[in-house]
Amino acid sequence: MMKIAVVGAGAVGAYHGIRLAQAGHETHFLLRSDYEAVRERGGFEIRDRGKTSVVPVLAHRSPEEIGACDLVLIALKTTANAQFPKLLPPLVGAGTTLLTLQNGLGNVEALGALFGAENVVGGLCYVTINRLAPGVVENFGATRLWLGEGDGGAPRERTRALAEMFCAAGLPAEAKTSLEETLWKKLCWNIPFNGLAIAGGDIACDALLASPELVELSWKLMREIQAAARARGCEISDEHLKKQFEVTERCGAYLPSSLLDYRAGRDVEIESIWGEPLRRGTAAGVPMPRLETLYLLLHSLCRKKRGVPAA
Amino acid sequence: MMKIAVVGAGAVGAYHGIRLAQAGHETHFLLRSDYEAVRERGGFEIRDRGKTSVVPVLAHRSPEEIGACDLVLIALKTTANAQFPKLLPPLVGAGTTLLTLQNGLGNVEALGALFGAENVVGGLCYVTINRLAPGVVENFGATRLWLGEGDGGAPRERTRALAEMFCAAGLPAEAKTSLEETLWKKLCWNIPFNGLAIAGGDIACDALLASPELVELSWKLMREIQAAARARGCEISDEHLKKQFEVTERCGAYLPSSLLDYRAGRDVEIESIWGEPLRRGTAAGVPMPRLETLYLLLHSLCRKKRGVPAA
Repeated sequence: MMKIAVVGAGAVGAYHGIRLAQAGHETHFLLRSDYEAVRERGGFEIRDRGKTSVVPVLAHRSPEEIGACDLVLIALKTTANAQFPKLLPPLVGAGTTLLTLQNGLGNVEALGALFGAENVVGGLCYVTINRLAPGVVENFGATRLWLGEGDGGAPRERTRALAEMFCAAGLPAEAKTSLEETLWKKLCWNIPFNGLAIAGGDIACDALLASPELVELSWKLMREIQAAARARGCEISDEHLKKQFEVTERCGAYLPSSLLDYRAGRDVEIESIWGEPLRRGTAAGVPMPRLETLYLLLHSLCRKKRGVPAA
Repeated sequence: MMKIAVVGAGAVGAYHGIRLAQAGHETHFLLRSDYEAVRERGGFEIRDRGKTSVVPVLAHRSPEEIGACDLVLIALKTTANAQFPKLLPPLVGAGTTLLTLQNGLGNVEALGALFGAENVVGGLCYVTINRLAPGVVENFGATRLWLGEGDGGAPRERTRALAEMFCAAGLPAEAKTSLEETLWKKLCWNIPFNGLAIAGGDIACDALLASPELVELSWKLMREIQAAARARGCEISDEHLKKQFEVTERCGAYLPSSLLDYRAGRDVEIESIWGEPLRRGTAAGVPMPRLETLYLLLHSLCRKKRGVPAA
C-alpha cells in the first residue's frame, strides 16, 4: 500500500483519488474550495453509473499536514502550475514519484525542472466524469489511463507498477512508450474542438460539426498538429484524425471542458492546450499559423469574458 | 450634365447621389426600403456637419423606369452582387460607364464580366457617413474618393472626367493609376479591424487595440495582405501598415460597419472583404492561413448570429 497525495480535486483528481483510497491506499487530498464540504460529509460523494456512495478520505488544507508521499498525483488546472513550488515540495521526499494527469503539453517539463525529470510520470486519461458540486463527483462510463515517462524514455519498472496499481483499483491503465505522442494525439481533439467551441461563438460540439467552415478549420488545425508532432518524432495517422470527428459525432451537444470554464468566467487552460503546442511546433520548424490565430483569439476572448484588463 | 443612376442607397450611395443631384445632374435613385420615406419627404434628408436639409431626388422602384444612363453608380452591399444581372441591364446603354463604390475585391470583375471591363470604373471612398433612418443620411466630415480603371490600366480620359465631375459636386476625387493597389491598401484596415471586431467577441476599435493579442494578429494579417498584394504587383509600404493603427487609435470606440451588420443580424460582406482577397492571394502563390482562419470563423459566426442553418 502506498502513501499518496492528490493535489487538485476537480473531477479527474477526485475520482482517481477516491478509487485509490477505496483500494486501501493511504490517500491524502489537498483541498481548498472542497475542504468544508468533504469534512462535513465525511468524505467525497461519488455517483457511479447510478450508484451513490460516500467515500471517507483524508482531507487537508496544507501540504505540510500531509508530508512526503510515495506518489503525488497532480490534477490541478494547468493555469495553477505557477503554484507548484509552493504546493509540492512538502509532499516530495527521496523516493517520491510525481504523476501529472493534467491537460496538454508542458506539465511534465515544469515538474521535471523542479524535481528531476526521472521522478516525473505523465498520464493522460480519457474520462466521462463531472464535478457536480464541492465534494461531489459523477462518473458515467469507463475510464482509461495512459502513463509515460516524463523524460521521454521507455516505461520504467516503477511506471509499470503504477499502471498495475491503478488497474488493481479498478482504473484500467497502461504504460506507453511515448508520453509526448500520446499527448499530441489527445491534442488533435482538444485544440480544434475545445478551441472552436469558444471562438466559434460559444457553441456545443454538434453545432461545431454542423458548420462546414469549422469542420474545415478543424481539419486544417489537425494537419498543423500532425506536422508538429511529426517534427518532434511522434507519428499521428490520418486515421487518428478522422476518428476525432467520428468520436465527436457521437458526443451530440457535448460542451468541452474549456467551454465550461469560459462560460463560467474561469481561467481557460490556454497555455497548455494551445500555447505550448504552438511554441513546441514552431521551435521544431513547423509553421502553425492557424493554431497561432486561434491561440491569440482565445486569449483575447477569455480575458474579455472574465472582464479583466490586458496585462 | 449627366444622366446618372444610383443603385443602392445606403450611406455611401445616397450621399454621393445627393451631391451629384445638387450639382445639377439628372440623378435617379433606384430604391427599395427607402422608397416610401423618400417619396413622403419629397427627397433625401441630409445632415451635414450640423446643417439639415431635404434634397429633392428622382426616386424609382425599378430600373426600367430609369432607362439607360451615362453613369451608373453602384453602392449596393456586395452581398447583393448576385442581383447585378437583374438590376443593371436596363440602366446600361452604348456609352454607359459603371462605377462601383463597393467594399473589397471582386466587384469590378463581376461588373466587367457582364458589361465589359473597359466600361467599369472602380472607386474607393473614405467617408464618415451614416444612414440614420430610411431616406436620412448624416455626414460628419470630409470625404475622399479614388477612382481607377476596372481593367487595371492607367486612368482613361473618361475616368479623369468623372473625377472632375465629383470634385465640381463638392466630392474631392482623384483618378489613380492602380485601382487594385488602392483596394488592397484599404483592405489593410478592413480585413483585420472589421474582422477582429466580430471574431474578437463583438468589440469596438478601442477594445481591439487594448488587446495585445488582437494587435499582434492584426499585424500578422496585414503582413499576409502585404505579401498577397505584392504578388499581384501592388506595393504596400510598412508605413502604410503602421498608419492603419494610428488612424484606428483616433477612432476611439468606433464600430466598424461589418460589426454593425453583424450585430443587426444583417448579411456581412464576407466574400468581398475576406473571401476574394484570400482567393486572389492564394492563387498568386501566397499562403494566407490567418486570413483563411478568420474567413472561416466569420462565416460560421455570422450564420450563427443570423440563426440560419448551414447551406
